[in-house]
Amino acid sequence: MTGERAFIDRLRAIATHPGARGLADDAAVLEVAAGGLVLTHDVLAEGVHYLADSDPADVAWKLAAVNLSDLAAKGATPLGALLGFTLGDGAWDAAFAAALGEVLAHYDMPLLGGDSVRLPGGSPRVLGLTAIGRAPDGGAPSRGGARAGDRLWVTGTIGDAGAGLALCRDRRSAPTELVGAYLRPRPRLAEGRALAPQVAAMMDVSDGLLIDAARMAAASGAGLTIALDEIPLSPALVGFAGDDRAARLAAATAGDDYQLLFALPPDRAPPVAATTIGQFADGSGLSLSEHGKAIALPARLGFVH
Amino acid sequence: MTGERAFIDRLRAIATHPGARGLADDAAVLEVAAGGLVLTHDVLAEGVHYLADSDPADVAWKLAAVNLSDLAAKGATPLGALLGFTLGDGAWDAAFAAALGEVLAHYDMPLLGGDSVRLPGGSPRVLGLTAIGRAPDGGAPSRGGARAGDRLWVTGTIGDAGAGLALCRDRRSAPTELVGAYLRPRPRLAEGRALAPQVAAMMDVSDGLLIDAARMAAASGAGLTIALDEIPLSPALVGFAGDDRAARLAAATAGDDYQLLFALPPDRAPPVAATTIGQFADGSGLSLSEHGKAIALPARLGFVH
Repeated sequence: MTGERAFIDRLRAIATHPGARGLADDAAVLEVAAGGLVLTHDVLAEGVHYLADSDPADVAWKLAAVNLSDLAAKGATPLGALLGFTLGDGAWDAAFAAALGEVLAHYDMPLLGGDSVRLPGGSPRVLGLTAIGRAPDGGAPSRGGARAGDRLWVTGTIGDAGAGLALCRDRRSAPTELVGAYLRPRPRLAEGRALAPQVAAMMDVSDGLLIDAARMAAASGAGLTIALDEIPLSPALVGFAGDDRAARLAAATAGDDYQLLFALPPDRAPPVAATTIGQFADGSGLSLSEHGKAIALPARLGFVH
Repeated sequence: MTGERAFIDRLRAIATHPGARGLADDAAVLEVAAGGLVLTHDVLAEGVHYLADSDPADVAWKLAAVNLSDLAAKGATPLGALLGFTLGDGAWDAAFAAALGEVLAHYDMPLLGGDSVRLPGGSPRVLGLTAIGRAPDGGAPSRGGARAGDRLWVTGTIGDAGAGLALCRDRRSAPTELVGAYLRPRPRLAEGRALAPQVAAMMDVSDGLLIDAARMAAASGAGLTIALDEIPLSPALVGFAGDDRAARLAAATAGDDYQLLFALPPDRAPPVAATTIGQFADGSGLSLSEHGKAIALPARLGFVH
């Protein structure tokens, strides 16, 4: 049995949804109700999005999580996933398949199909996942609906994953909570569904809070001021990195948070736990304040493609 | 402007469907009617599925075509596509994007979203496409519905692409028709839609006629005999490779044909141009005949994953 055959057999054990047709047909078939679908495809590459010696179980988790986070940002409910996989070491592949099964089951997203290929030896792995979800009944919120006067909110805490990445890179034994936030981000699906009917705009924080917020402001044709001192930091992060301006700027530009960033009219409170960190205004561009006083933006707002 | 930004701007010019949201949101949104979706994700890797010096326009065509062929095999009508792309040389990327726009427009499949990543220098490109289609009203045929007595049919001609690949590898100036069949396969979407309501089983021929037919027989729990002498060969292939047993076996095991292979009850004629090349029977396994006499199967039935 070739490595590819063994890998596909492992995926077959996961792909029990009837629409997957046992991964033995040309394509998957999924019955859907009339309405909106939300579709995303994110790629993780070895040496780019994850370290070459990463645990394959963490890579599988992250591949699913980054795509599920896109669904969460549109208030969608997962319907299914398709995997594009480059084969390598058989033990790595087997551990990846097992973990992918676990994370997809955890988030109730059936594996429906995909493709695998063996690259020439030494090539970095390139892993793609397509996630398909059902849009919320009222439609999937865009990034571009914020209006002057709306408040900017964010779920959870910011900067944990960035600190976790730094710790992984330095091979330091580290606060589990920070490393866990980097390796095993939790897509905010339930929050996204609850928020979708109410928000003026919503997206996930993947490239960095500041750059992603600037994108929301630009898409909305509005200006935005973020209060650096209001950005929610976890006790673990404050314990590790402190709570001064430099630490807060690092947190706000690190990325990989996979929290939800959303705009609400000023008289409305969100239906989920969240922190208000800014306000939209007429004009354009992102500004930053600290204890009510304007401060300069950092040179780098986050990860730029 | 980074190369990734320039590439995404080129894709934006293609992704004019409103569901693509200008490739500026976390995900695409597609409104669908109630019913079945057909979903597939195929990967093309440099040095594996295409030669490293291939024309990027041919690679773009093939990436779209192999996925569209999976939709065709299920009688589906294209609804949209998501691209996973590894960036490289900017001129190559630009030519790929332009050609992708052309082939997607040709087959009326909107680009809805995707992701791109720049790999370390020297890494082979890995290109993924997810294609989503609407299933035919009566449901998408499977590979597994053929019954003893059914006839096996195939559209078009077999072996042209295999000869075209050999010619490309040898850098020979070659019959345009054969090279074209390899570089620019034509997914049989119209034929697939016409056939879907009538066939007992259907799939596309991608890994080789014999191996794919054996898979249909296995999925159907039936035996199958193929008449080697009935397999339709093009005049161009016969002129290039001859018409003896060796040439026919080469054609029947080469793959990349992207024709439709389907089973029909013996009293039924297909609604599209096609050739009957075999018959299902009780039992299991693939057998081969030539002018009515059994002959041995070749050692290799096609491309094995």
